[in-house]
Amino acid sequence: MDSRARVCLQGVEGYKPGKSVEQAQRGSRKKVSFIKLASNENALGASPMAMTALRKAVKNLQQYPDPVCHDLRAALAKKLKLKPENFVFGNGSDELLVMAIRAFVEADEEVIVAQPTFLIYELQSKVSGASVKVVPLSQMRYDLKAMAAAVTSKTKLIFIANPDNPTGTYVNHDEVVHFLEQLPAHVVVVMDEAYFEFAEGKDYPKSLSVLDKYPIIVTRTFSKAYGLAGLRIGYGMMQPALAEALNAVREPFNVNTLAQAAAIGALKDKAFLAASKKLVREGRRFLERELIQLGFHVVPSATNFVLFEVGLKGQELAESLLTRGVIIREMKGWKLPGFLRVTIGTMAQNKKFVQALKATLKEQA
Amino acid sequence: MDSRARVCLQGVEGYKPGKSVEQAQRGSRKKVSFIKLASNENALGASPMAMTALRKAVKNLQQYPDPVCHDLRAALAKKLKLKPENFVFGNGSDELLVMAIRAFVEADEEVIVAQPTFLIYELQSKVSGASVKVVPLSQMRYDLKAMAAAVTSKTKLIFIANPDNPTGTYVNHDEVVHFLEQLPAHVVVVMDEAYFEFAEGKDYPKSLSVLDKYPIIVTRTFSKAYGLAGLRIGYGMMQPALAEALNAVREPFNVNTLAQAAAIGALKDKAFLAASKKLVREGRRFLERELIQLGFHVVPSATNFVLFEVGLKGQELAESLLTRGVIIREMKGWKLPGFLRVTIGTMAQNKKFVQALKATLKEQA
Repeated sequence: MDSRARVCLQGVEGYKPGKSVEQAQRGSRKKVSFIKLASNENALGASPMAMTALRKAVKNLQQYPDPVCHDLRAALAKKLKLKPENFVFGNGSDELLVMAIRAFVEADEEVIVAQPTFLIYELQSKVSGASVKVVPLSQMRYDLKAMAAAVTSKTKLIFIANPDNPTGTYVNHDEVVHFLEQLPAHVVVVMDEAYFEFAEGKDYPKSLSVLDKYPIIVTRTFSKAYGLAGLRIGYGMMQPALAEALNAVREPFNVNTLAQAAAIGALKDKAFLAASKKLVREGRRFLERELIQLGFHVVPSATNFVLFEVGLKGQELAESLLTRGVIIREMKGWKLPGFLRVTIGTMAQNKKFVQALKATLKEQA
Repeated sequence: MDSRARVCLQGVEGYKPGKSVEQAQRGSRKKVSFIKLASNENALGASPMAMTALRKAVKNLQQYPDPVCHDLRAALAKKLKLKPENFVFGNGSDELLVMAIRAFVEADEEVIVAQPTFLIYELQSKVSGASVKVVPLSQMRYDLKAMAAAVTSKTKLIFIANPDNPTGTYVNHDEVVHFLEQLPAHVVVVMDEAYFEFAEGKDYPKSLSVLDKYPIIVTRTFSKAYGLAGLRIGYGMMQPALAEALNAVREPFNVNTLAQAAAIGALKDKAFLAASKKLVREGRRFLERELIQLGFHVVPSATNFVLFEVGLKGQELAESLLTRGVIIREMKGWKLPGFLRVTIGTMAQNKKFVQALKATLKEQA
């Protein structure tokens, strides 16, 4: 890296996205038909109502996008019974995470993150020059007690992935409220709810109900349950004064026109949302059962993916699955060697994955 | 703004985008048909070949975009005779400007910007915590001599808009090379060439020919000459070691799938590019002549907009034009009171603007 780069960038390892089908095909000697269960994408595709709205919006693209997402903002405010000024929109909810860091964390301040969790929190905090305090999960769940105990006068931001990626677990409403109650007033909490639609437990936090009470930024996305990952659109909800800070660092035209249009369409697509949730619910049950039967330790998931422990042969297993046309995620990069994460696919894809896994295990036995 | 926000955000005034036709219509009592000549958008619309490529790409949008823009990168590298690793892609070239600041400027370092110029340089430097040194233009052109003289041991980044926005002027190849020759090795220069396609002078810098020699980041966009502003895609070209630094701060999925596809289509659309350039060339000649005949001071432009001085009544004139259905940009926000900037439209739009201007002046006389 160029020596003029900021000191905080040196030695930071970038995010490694999951292998795409195209990359797998480029890397494969044989002609294999691949399925990708590596990036927690929606196995049903994109919301059809979103696609209809998108196609109608393919005009006047020489014009800059609406910088304030006026129509989408109004639609979400109405749906979620919030005020328009509670929202900030991002180029994917990823961008909101970065905006939160850039808006609140001074160079001499701290960010608290869990481990393992979504890697972008730590990575983007580090490349913004903040120091990062890492709090391990406890039994594969966020350890909010330990996270609260880690807070100092220098702590500015805490990231909570809820449900968590890559474990699929969540912390419940009472735990979150108890946690927020304890925090000193100078701490802002990002509640990353990218997978919230799949967390159907009754005790899952109603974070919007405490938006007025605590300095939290609740982020959600159209990438997962609505299947719009390729378009890049997410949103954050927070008190208007917090939104002002995010807007101060936001680039004015950060959300493209087609993403805005598609998201408005997606919000109306109740049938697709219900089908996505059902597919995930059933696939999760199937995969958890099959993996347990194969003798693996499975982390109970509230998301569209399942994390399971296979022991030392994790890397080998993932590679063998790849030669059989199934792309899943090996978890060494998350400091979880011996774990694999598989996205819940269509039932046919889930079965193909299980078959490939069984064949691999048989071969290795 | 929330008191937890970074100190550097306090008092920074956000970017005010040009009024859209929808906003103008919402604000208008009468039913007026508006034309927008305020955001330097392409009057011919979007490249048709880009739109064809986009429509074909509307599938599998549940998948994350290619994080490295593999195909677009290859197409641009071939066209511009550069290496694939010379490129970094952004959510509009705006994002590349922010990446450059985040990648190179420490909190105690300085950024040098001109005034007036594209406002995002100063704004994003400030909200990143850098100090900003402002060097006035000289006779409406970048004063590279003064900018070089402003460099200190703390200077890390210099922004050169070339051609400049809002003046439309440019600094030539020899001037740029002479400037780069003088800079100490710790300084990185961003050459923002968003409007370069419209700068047809023979002395316009061949910045790519000196990419290997100097630490420069040349940014370009598909928003202007190709008419893809709504999709958000721009790119930067630089030495691979500089690109590594930008990639370290880049969010992995920052360029959406449809923007990537459309940009590849646009690159093939030589007819559209030629037509855009011709429209701008002829419209510029027409507008400059008309404005001079009306007695205004006109800044000679190498872009798709024209800056002209109307004196104290600038605000009033812009408002009167708005009631007549013409949205242009009043330049107070750029610290150029008494100046107006008009985007070159279709010839019909240019004429409508001139008529509206004449009618306003007559009324005021």
